[in-house]
Amino acid sequence: MRVAVVGASGYTGLELLRILRRHPRAELVAVTSEQRAGRAVGEVFPSLRGLVDLHFESAADPLAIAARAEVVFTALPHATSAPVVAVLCRAGATVIDLSADFRLLDPAVYAKWYGEHAVPELIGSAVYGLPELHRDAIRKSEFVAAPGCYPTSVLLPLCPFLRAGLVETDSVLVDSKSGVSGAGRALQDGYLFAELDGNFHAYKVGGAHRHVPEMEQEAGLVAGGPVQIGFVPQLLPTIRGIATTVFLRPRSPLSTDDALAVLNDAYAREPFVRVLPKGETPRLASVRGSNFCDVGAVVDQRTGALILLSCLDNLGKGASGQAVQCMNLMRDLPETMGLLEAPIHP
Amino acid sequence: MRVAVVGASGYTGLELLRILRRHPRAELVAVTSEQRAGRAVGEVFPSLRGLVDLHFESAADPLAIAARAEVVFTALPHATSAPVVAVLCRAGATVIDLSADFRLLDPAVYAKWYGEHAVPELIGSAVYGLPELHRDAIRKSEFVAAPGCYPTSVLLPLCPFLRAGLVETDSVLVDSKSGVSGAGRALQDGYLFAELDGNFHAYKVGGAHRHVPEMEQEAGLVAGGPVQIGFVPQLLPTIRGIATTVFLRPRSPLSTDDALAVLNDAYAREPFVRVLPKGETPRLASVRGSNFCDVGAVVDQRTGALILLSCLDNLGKGASGQAVQCMNLMRDLPETMGLLEAPIHP
Amino acid sequence: MRVAVVGASGYTGLELLRILRRHPRAELVAVTSEQRAGRAVGEVFPSLRGLVDLHFESAADPLAIAARAEVVFTALPHATSAPVVAVLCRAGATVIDLSADFRLLDPAVYAKWYGEHAVPELIGSAVYGLPELHRDAIRKSEFVAAPGCYPTSVLLPLCPFLRAGLVETDSVLVDSKSGVSGAGRALQDGYLFAELDGNFHAYKVGGAHRHVPEMEQEAGLVAGGPVQIGFVPQLLPTIRGIATTVFLRPRSPLSTDDALAVLNDAYAREPFVRVLPKGETPRLASVRGSNFCDVGAVVDQRTGALILLSCLDNLGKGASGQAVQCMNLMRDLPETMGLLEAPIHP
Amino acid sequence: MRVAVVGASGYTGLELLRILRRHPRAELVAVTSEQRAGRAVGEVFPSLRGLVDLHFESAADPLAIAARAEVVFTALPHATSAPVVAVLCRAGATVIDLSADFRLLDPAVYAKWYGEHAVPELIGSAVYGLPELHRDAIRKSEFVAAPGCYPTSVLLPLCPFLRAGLVETDSVLVDSKSGVSGAGRALQDGYLFAELDGNFHAYKVGGAHRHVPEMEQEAGLVAGGPVQIGFVPQLLPTIRGIATTVFLRPRSPLSTDDALAVLNDAYAREPFVRVLPKGETPRLASVRGSNFCDVGAVVDQRTGALILLSCLDNLGKGASGQAVQCMNLMRDLPETMGLLEAPIHP
Repeated sequence: MRVAVVGASGYTGLELLRILRRHPRAELVAVTSEQRAGRAVGEVFPSLRGLVDLHFESAADPLAIAARAEVVFTALPHATSAPVVAVLCRAGATVIDLSADFRLLDPAVYAKWYGEHAVPELIGSAVYGLPELHRDAIRKSEFVAAPGCYPTSVLLPLCPFLRAGLVETDSVLVDSKSGVSGAGRALQDGYLFAELDGNFHAYKVGGAHRHVPEMEQEAGLVAGGPVQIGFVPQLLPTIRGIATTVFLRPRSPLSTDDALAVLNDAYAREPFVRVLPKGETPRLASVRGSNFCDVGAVVDQRTGALILLSCLDNLGKGASGQAVQCMNLMRDLPETMGLLEAPIHP
Repeated sequence: MRVAVVGASGYTGLELLRILRRHPRAELVAVTSEQRAGRAVGEVFPSLRGLVDLHFESAADPLAIAARAEVVFTALPHATSAPVVAVLCRAGATVIDLSADFRLLDPAVYAKWYGEHAVPELIGSAVYGLPELHRDAIRKSEFVAAPGCYPTSVLLPLCPFLRAGLVETDSVLVDSKSGVSGAGRALQDGYLFAELDGNFHAYKVGGAHRHVPEMEQEAGLVAGGPVQIGFVPQLLPTIRGIATTVFLRPRSPLSTDDALAVLNDAYAREPFVRVLPKGETPRLASVRGSNFCDVGAVVDQRTGALILLSCLDNLGKGASGQAVQCMNLMRDLPETMGLLEAPIHP
Repeated sequence: MRVAVVGASGYTGLELLRILRRHPRAELVAVTSEQRAGRAVGEVFPSLRGLVDLHFESAADPLAIAARAEVVFTALPHATSAPVVAVLCRAGATVIDLSADFRLLDPAVYAKWYGEHAVPELIGSAVYGLPELHRDAIRKSEFVAAPGCYPTSVLLPLCPFLRAGLVETDSVLVDSKSGVSGAGRALQDGYLFAELDGNFHAYKVGGAHRHVPEMEQEAGLVAGGPVQIGFVPQLLPTIRGIATTVFLRPRSPLSTDDALAVLNDAYAREPFVRVLPKGETPRLASVRGSNFCDVGAVVDQRTGALILLSCLDNLGKGASGQAVQCMNLMRDLPETMGLLEAPIHP
Repeated sequence: MRVAVVGASGYTGLELLRILRRHPRAELVAVTSEQRAGRAVGEVFPSLRGLVDLHFESAADPLAIAARAEVVFTALPHATSAPVVAVLCRAGATVIDLSADFRLLDPAVYAKWYGEHAVPELIGSAVYGLPELHRDAIRKSEFVAAPGCYPTSVLLPLCPFLRAGLVETDSVLVDSKSGVSGAGRALQDGYLFAELDGNFHAYKVGGAHRHVPEMEQEAGLVAGGPVQIGFVPQLLPTIRGIATTVFLRPRSPLSTDDALAVLNDAYAREPFVRVLPKGETPRLASVRGSNFCDVGAVVDQRTGALILLSCLDNLGKGASGQAVQCMNLMRDLPETMGLLEAPIHP
């Protein structure tokens, strides 16, 4: 299966290369980067020296890429991605887009958060690539929009409770902490080691983060009605990982055992969601470098609040790993192929 | 003013030495450690080599310490501290206890969380050493129980809203993240660099952490009735710092400007609480090594929840800095003496 | 191929499990730990939850292990390892010992650095498991002593120059920096996050580290005469990785190009030693989690000194990865089987 | 004493503000930054909120600065600094320049490493601001060039041995590791947290770093003849700190005790150089945030090499702290004024 990665010089691109290299059925045939076009992959990413024998090329002509690859991952910034994706889709490629361009179903919502859409006619044509929610649709699709990292970390613990109607939907409170690779390789002052090490802070508090409409859309579909999410993203001094706390008000009293039963029912047969036993909490170090999302639940003794916890690797289950999981489904391969590597700990 | 630190070989002890060294009126006359008795301070703490010319001694006879020092800080583990404190108090020393032994006013609550109290007759005789709540009482006291680090980080942003009756008190939800020095120098597997670096996880979720009754006691005093706090402590891969998010339900709709006005009213004249302007969020790096607590507020657009954020240095305002602030009050010195050093950034 | 890991609850043990899990020909049949006997692997190592379905067992009777496994890795502390290894070898198992017990060929040298040897008659019966030096002997052996992490990082860049007689052997100066996982899970004050983060320091300077005789032994075999190494080990605030600088005096003037040619001649066909092009320097992040050792060389313009640089993952090529590489050779499998995963970056 | 900091928005500028704020005799009257002109200091540096009540201003007219301040620190990039310094000096200000523009005495050497000098007639008019080498000259000077961070860390341990003629001067080998704040706030890919955390690598190996001629100049002055230094700078995953290893060949055999005696003789009365006792090694954490340089020495048993170790804070003794130490000398104040704060540990 010939595979290309368009926009491969960022961190999600690099992680795609790392995973696809070991995928038994994927053959990397093209990697693109406008900035690094012409340079050897191993020179740009010394970790891949001797492992990936390709040069970055330009994707100025996406048709040329589509002609060589059956499956194309696009890991471009939003807005940049849409027109490239449009060409690829029309050329008949199987496309997995890691940008935000095709996650939102409502054009008005997209416009509000991201500005005018370059290819509005394609909005709604991609399946939201969270296999635990949309496995069957992904299987039948040729075009998937891979979810954002925060939404994945929120939706996986949250949805089983929404589906069962066990919790209030007007005030889902979320405190999420992300490692800095979630911001990609952006050269910003705040991502410098000297600024981030030993530091921690929130940003875009109170409904200001672009991942909020995406979470609310998918949560609403599951709940069968609007879900309001109060979202506090925070920046962790780690490279990888998202750790999320979700605070919920149960509609009627719930025990920790009840809550864990709900999660276990939902995920017992899921290969990449591990429900932790009572008394254990998810840890970033236990999912580092992997496609797992670990989830746990506790009902607070004092307030009755249901507290959900999740940890995943933002580059793994939060982006590139999940994209490959979608590819496996779309191409009728075993869903876990190339993705069952053990997390790297310590 | 002759000052002693009993139990000075842990991190709060070391931070006390660092602060007291530069305090213009404090003269360190004795530092104790049962484990390190006989060794030079500069040998045990190479950072203090050439700066503190004392040897650790035993505190087996606290009376001997009280005879030499007017002010004694006790930085011992809970349960170990109470009997030492009792001797010191009876000997007439001004005592600032950094353990949990005298923070709780209700003996039954103490017993439930910490076991039998060694000196039950002294329970209730210390003033809870949070100057922003109890400044006058601290001024008149000879015995102060310095607050826990988590409670300080929660109470400072929370109390102004409780006092004004603006928020519901049955479900205060708190997500707190602490650097590892909050656990002292405890030799536990989970505090190893190889376990903690790049890691992040919650622990003692849902009312299981010993700081919960302390927060609820003080919050309840301010609110004039019971306050229920759902508390999620988490371990950050940093040495210093506590970053806290508090989620509150306003009794009637509130804007971000309203919320900031409440904080500004409460803290405009406080030397160590900095209320951040709208749009800014507290950062651990901005309080590192200092006695400041930075606080911010945002009202979430979607859920109407009031979100409070705070950052402090758990060894500074969260422990040793605050203890020295209390000493200044108790000894009628300028409250900020020795404490206005700039945070260390980067 | 049935494989057992004896002493699997430390970091080299955990890394062996991580690698052997993905090895296409290895079937993990037993993992032992005296401390954790009876507990599930996924409970002790949450990263392996759902991936390794075994319980730790005791190795009190090594014969029982040998009866079930054809290949046994021993990852025990030195001195503890020797008697276990002796039983396993006599029972006919293929044994790869990761301790220091069988690396040194001279019993007197062992005694000087480690104390009395428990099984002196086995000294010298293991092959030193550095494939780049002893590939043929490893292939024919049933008993390999896997090298120390520092020696691997020093010998790989150094040996080609010794073999060619290009450098003085009386004063090889080495500055090596190691991540803390090289010390295993030892509960020592100095390995706490609060002590190590932001810190850096040398230890056991000047011939005091136990890896010195091991380096000198192997370097001497290559040089055909004694080699004296001045070794400065230092502790890096990272979990993984060893970065080594070797300073050499060339016997006659050498250019950087000459030096790189020597390395390229030596390693062009080696699968796990990557010689970097002129102007590039090895980076820990480029080998993290992998079995690679990256090496570089520069001749200093001012002093004429030859400066060699190397980076490897102390748990990968420095321990467990290399041990599996040896297993592949001993069992006549492709040398790289299970070991060509891309390093994890970022 | 009215003091200004020109170019105060980088890390050395920020550290100057942190130190000068607490200096009992310095009054900060102006801080400049072309990029941040008009913004409040506490807005740009939230750590200084409430502590420094100034706005950044432009230094387009340095005369205006000189008119208001008796002492001016210039913390500008090299080449940018020289013309500003020239105006300030001519206006009669006491100037301490933290750039490289006036450290080198030989115009040809400057030109080779930095390009054409903007004010060649001023070359040689500044005193090299290392008080341990040039205290008397600094005292008498109105213009000091503060040393580079690497040179300070190398010269302090090295010079006593050069002065005593105890070591060969044709091959001083140095392995130096620096925290990333040494590179200032430069927005480069390699200084991102995601690139640097868990990483470590050398750069500009083999006489390619601009600090080499500076070290050789000062070492040569002490040795009374040319000194050749083979320098390997490396980047540590820490914010602050330089740890240096110097390898020397003694002219005749030396013991560790001899070496320590040489250091103790040189530094017994120095307030900021702490010679560690035998068996201890300098640690970055023990000097963090301070003006100390800790030094140690070991003679290697095997090669006879003399190994010197030093640790300092690159923003403290390596830059801003040392600059203030010079100011104290130049203005006839106690040398340690404002500089004896305890290092921040943990």
